[in-house]
Amino acid sequence: MKVYFDNAATTPMDPEVFEVMKPFLLEKYGNPSSTHSMGRQARAAIESSRKKIAELLQCLPSEIIFTSGGTEANNSLLQGAIEADKSPTIITSPTEHHSVLEKAKRLSLQGFKVEWLKVDPRGNMDYEHLRALLSQHPNSIVSLMHVNNEIGTISDLELISGLCNEYGAYFHTDAIAGVGHIVYDLQNTNIDGLSASAHKFHGPKGVGFMYINHKKRISPIFFGGPQERELRAGTENVAGIIGAAKALELSYNNLTHDSEFLTELKNRFTSQLFDKIPGIEFNGDPRTGLFTILNISLPVSLNNEMLLFNLDLQGISASGGSACSAGAEEDSHVLKAIGTVPERGAIRFSFGKYNTLREVDYVVDQLVELFTSD
Amino acid sequence: MKVYFDNAATTPMDPEVFEVMKPFLLEKYGNPSSTHSMGRQARAAIESSRKKIAELLQCLPSEIIFTSGGTEANNSLLQGAIEADKSPTIITSPTEHHSVLEKAKRLSLQGFKVEWLKVDPRGNMDYEHLRALLSQHPNSIVSLMHVNNEIGTISDLELISGLCNEYGAYFHTDAIAGVGHIVYDLQNTNIDGLSASAHKFHGPKGVGFMYINHKKRISPIFFGGPQERELRAGTENVAGIIGAAKALELSYNNLTHDSEFLTELKNRFTSQLFDKIPGIEFNGDPRTGLFTILNISLPVSLNNEMLLFNLDLQGISASGGSACSAGAEEDSHVLKAIGTVPERGAIRFSFGKYNTLREVDYVVDQLVELFTSD
Repeated sequence: MKVYFDNAATTPMDPEVFEVMKPFLLEKYGNPSSTHSMGRQARAAIESSRKKIAELLQCLPSEIIFTSGGTEANNSLLQGAIEADKSPTIITSPTEHHSVLEKAKRLSLQGFKVEWLKVDPRGNMDYEHLRALLSQHPNSIVSLMHVNNEIGTISDLELISGLCNEYGAYFHTDAIAGVGHIVYDLQNTNIDGLSASAHKFHGPKGVGFMYINHKKRISPIFFGGPQERELRAGTENVAGIIGAAKALELSYNNLTHDSEFLTELKNRFTSQLFDKIPGIEFNGDPRTGLFTILNISLPVSLNNEMLLFNLDLQGISASGGSACSAGAEEDSHVLKAIGTVPERGAIRFSFGKYNTLREVDYVVDQLVELFTSD
Repeated sequence: MKVYFDNAATTPMDPEVFEVMKPFLLEKYGNPSSTHSMGRQARAAIESSRKKIAELLQCLPSEIIFTSGGTEANNSLLQGAIEADKSPTIITSPTEHHSVLEKAKRLSLQGFKVEWLKVDPRGNMDYEHLRALLSQHPNSIVSLMHVNNEIGTISDLELISGLCNEYGAYFHTDAIAGVGHIVYDLQNTNIDGLSASAHKFHGPKGVGFMYINHKKRISPIFFGGPQERELRAGTENVAGIIGAAKALELSYNNLTHDSEFLTELKNRFTSQLFDKIPGIEFNGDPRTGLFTILNISLPVSLNNEMLLFNLDLQGISASGGSACSAGAEEDSHVLKAIGTVPERGAIRFSFGKYNTLREVDYVVDQLVELFTSD
């Protein structure tokens, strides 16, 4: 049996998404910047994709800017906000994705001050600390993720954006693990910039977008043609953009069903593991964390080291940390930040709409067998 | 009859390219950074694509870094070279693509000195002027395009890279209009950085690459995961990368045939226009320019204003300048730089392997009719 429980790393593309992309990969190949009919056809499709995404996230179409993915969106929003605001301080947390962490470290080398927000052992952000940091550094740039991609902890966007607004800070949120799985009403929050990536919600790789609040324009990081309202030069990835919009539409159209199903799936997995592996611990909070992610720490055992490898041999795809750090075979910075014991083997299982309850039972059986084998 | 003569803006994807991309859009969806078999499958495909491109351009696989396209490649190479070299001077030409021009202008606002190389009325670079600039500003960053995307003028890479080497300058070339159509031997030149874009050689939009000479490492512009040897963070556009490599392979495998055919096509077009439209002028040099591009200036006439629009009505896709500037309805900066009279309607026709000689005859007939109609 093949089980893909690594949906936080990337998701299988929805075949319906492929179908809408296909004509724009083949016959409808015009450059959207061309003024002839082939170009206008591509342009119209991009603008209708933008409108669709804006409707789903409740913002203006002009506030959606397409990028090559989440990393570009995070980097662009941080660099752009800094260039536009010239704020000397960045407030972020140690549990952010590498694309925020590494950018923040880079900015720190360039003379910007980076303040690290405290997180508790469940990965929850310390909002009192945030207030303290903001009162010390008003008008700073705050970058805090919505859903942690390794442990599923969800931060309180309303609270954070309210605080940022109160202190005149710019608020960017990496919502890459949230978009497509949680409802956003961007019109009615004080979020200034938000990042999303299509391949996290059954869309194609190589495309994502930024929400840029029209009240807080930023500087671009690419210069060139006037594409994307001069905020992101370069010929658009037309098929990718169309795929991203379709994937988001499908995600939100089926959100009630999918979220109920995935919650059931995650709960079944959680309770079976709890029953069958004495001493197991859950990283983050499995009750309040997002239904797509379950991160566990096994009791210390010699079997832990080869566990992911052996799961893979059994056809089960799961991850040791995020996909980005997994390749490097480093310990997860997120688990380190929340104080997890490194000797306890940690595994992230992450779920998507194509998973089944039967897969849960299979993975639990395999995991128990591998873990308890001599 | 539908005729697409705008291949310099973008090319139709080769159906063979689509076929190799398809499995990586659908069933082979792993994240290349994941260590499980799904991930390793994607990783292997990326590395084999990189190797293929390196072989075709005669460089090392580690010197090929994938990007989201040509604009990202141009911006990254320029920004990266500056951060790595801290050179205060950039030497570039007024006929570069916007993604170099606008980046250079931005750098100029940030305190870098930009020296503009002289070009002659055919768009040829003034190499004596280049030597003079380099002797004044050794160790500068030189960015000069290989093939001009509007008029097809080809610059002498060997000469330029030799001069840059002599004066210790960093040499970047925007080869976006050249890669796939001209043979490169990067191992045996002094090029430090080169940009390419897949959709210009019948590959997908949203993917390109940089050649970064291993002797001249640069700083990245995105930070995050360790992808692309830490030179370009972000989950890879797996299908796009595979498509790019396949498209380049097809281009070079068929280069002799395609270049002979397109030269014949362009010559037929040129001589028919010359015969049938008295007073027509050719921008750039139709004999020495690349076989993919023919840029004409018509005699001054009231018909010129609506010419592109009327060609489009007849099913003919062509461009007034590059696609990037076409949307903005501005006069071409390239034609301005080479001193073309703006009142003469300028049209860029650009050719690809799917065009036919019959299309040439049709377009000439339509153009003559439209141009001479009362």
